[in-house]
Amino acid sequence: MTDHSPTPKSAEPVYAKLAVIGGGLIGSSVIRAAREKGAAGEIAVADSSPVHRERLKALGIADQVTGDAAEAARDADLIVLAVPVMAMGEAVAAAAPGMKLGATLSDVGSVKGAVAEAMAANAPAGAFVIPGHPVAGTEQSGPDAGFGSLFENRWIILTPQKRDDAPYQAALERLTEFWLRLGSRVELMDERHHDLVLAVTSHLPHLIAYNIVGTAADLEEVTQGEVMKYSAGGFRDFTRIAASDPIMWRDVFLTNKDAVLEILGRFTEDLQALSRAIRWGEGEKLQQLFTRTRAIRLGIVAAGQESAEPNFGRDRRG
Amino acid sequence: MTDHSPTPKSAEPVYAKLAVIGGGLIGSSVIRAAREKGAAGEIAVADSSPVHRERLKALGIADQVTGDAAEAARDADLIVLAVPVMAMGEAVAAAAPGMKLGATLSDVGSVKGAVAEAMAANAPAGAFVIPGHPVAGTEQSGPDAGFGSLFENRWIILTPQKRDDAPYQAALERLTEFWLRLGSRVELMDERHHDLVLAVTSHLPHLIAYNIVGTAADLEEVTQGEVMKYSAGGFRDFTRIAASDPIMWRDVFLTNKDAVLEILGRFTEDLQALSRAIRWGEGEKLQQLFTRTRAIRLGIVAAGQESAEPNFGRDRRG
Repeated sequence: MTDHSPTPKSAEPVYAKLAVIGGGLIGSSVIRAAREKGAAGEIAVADSSPVHRERLKALGIADQVTGDAAEAARDADLIVLAVPVMAMGEAVAAAAPGMKLGATLSDVGSVKGAVAEAMAANAPAGAFVIPGHPVAGTEQSGPDAGFGSLFENRWIILTPQKRDDAPYQAALERLTEFWLRLGSRVELMDERHHDLVLAVTSHLPHLIAYNIVGTAADLEEVTQGEVMKYSAGGFRDFTRIAASDPIMWRDVFLTNKDAVLEILGRFTEDLQALSRAIRWGEGEKLQQLFTRTRAIRLGIVAAGQESAEPNFGRDRRG
Repeated sequence: MTDHSPTPKSAEPVYAKLAVIGGGLIGSSVIRAAREKGAAGEIAVADSSPVHRERLKALGIADQVTGDAAEAARDADLIVLAVPVMAMGEAVAAAAPGMKLGATLSDVGSVKGAVAEAMAANAPAGAFVIPGHPVAGTEQSGPDAGFGSLFENRWIILTPQKRDDAPYQAALERLTEFWLRLGSRVELMDERHHDLVLAVTSHLPHLIAYNIVGTAADLEEVTQGEVMKYSAGGFRDFTRIAASDPIMWRDVFLTNKDAVLEILGRFTEDLQALSRAIRWGEGEKLQQLFTRTRAIRLGIVAAGQESAEPNFGRDRRG
């Protein structure tokens, strides 16, 4: 096993058994983090890909590696779905036959409205359904890309159902404890609002990055070699984002369509105004916007979401 | 003096005297790098801002700090203009009275067509005008933000005039040697082509970043606090780029208008197609584009322009 910090002996596992459905970047990171922090006793992982299963076995991070979601879910106290958003419903249906009464069912999907619906529709009666989204990740994919510190100091947004019965609230408290143990900061949010906030802070940035890299690839007068060679001028940051998992992101855009199109509409409107200001040489307008956006960055730095230090070796632009 | 590596005693300075006009991020980095690598004997810097001059004196990186460009340029073998693009013509005119016959006049501006014109129009007869652009920088500004390793393994694009006389070619060779000494890789390019390539790899990425940060700031339903809190989802990378110097970038867009609007037009067209694919649920189209852009990233990593390692602590997204 790799990346193992010693489990704090004092802390009891939050869940006796954890089942993760989908052992890619995020799923395998949940497993690693739960192991390293002693947040779960036994850990099972189900993955439909034989290649992933082989890697998961070789990595030795889980007690049980299987292709059968129901088998992984058997006796689990927490089941975490870590598959692309549009595969969530199917994953719940596959896990359901193995789930015990009173188990908590959560996920890590980047969209919450559609996933909450799919989970509610397919979860067995007696399960506590609490959708979730850790705002963490890298552009890498697969079991080998995960790491146990991925969620440290990152936000996990939980979008609980509108239920105020005590057992559900207890399940929510326990899931909160689980993520706190993994080093995350926990926020509760309405799923519709989640989808709007993430459309701005994550989905549109990815869409824009995918788009600009595609545009650059189609130019006749500028070669791919030149684009790569001079990518330090700003473009490289976009290529990193545009290297994110294609299926995961396809699903995000298809399932958060309304919020993404709404934000994209505003972005395009603003971009056209900016384009017009360039065409007509309105320097004052440009300078005002650029001064304003700089102030926003300083706000992020001041809020401790980011270091003010220049990022040596990565962000040299000009 | 800070950041001093020992000057290699074996290497003679490439220029006996270097004058840098403008001591901000790039200008002060040229000074530091030239000093550290022993690429220049004496170094003078001129800056029109009293605040900058005070910092430059306190940093002690130059032998002479002045507000008078002609004074800095006196007896200099190389004069490097490091001011915003639209201030280049004025900077040349200010330095010209001090320039000696046979001096080389270069710059570090992000746009080359407009700068080449401004330099040619204002340079004294007998100067060798060789515009240049180091593709390097950070989102920081000012004398304190510079550092001597900024240009290491970065490209400097020189856009020499169409002259094949021996003295000009000798001046070009010497300027090439100077940048090689600073650790850069040197490329020669036609200025019009430079402006098109950089419109793609640098100017459009900055415009897009400025725009998205502005769009996010104007939302009614999502607070600034939320945007900052969940910026790890991809948005944060854009805020870093959108924190770049407002005046420098205003000038870039105004002086490289044609290439920027051309590339922006293509970007917008592609974005509308993407928007349509989302609206009509064309998952196959989205997946194809996202798979293609991922391959481009792998090309950049393979070309050694970037590390394949996940960027721990900075790029955790989801």
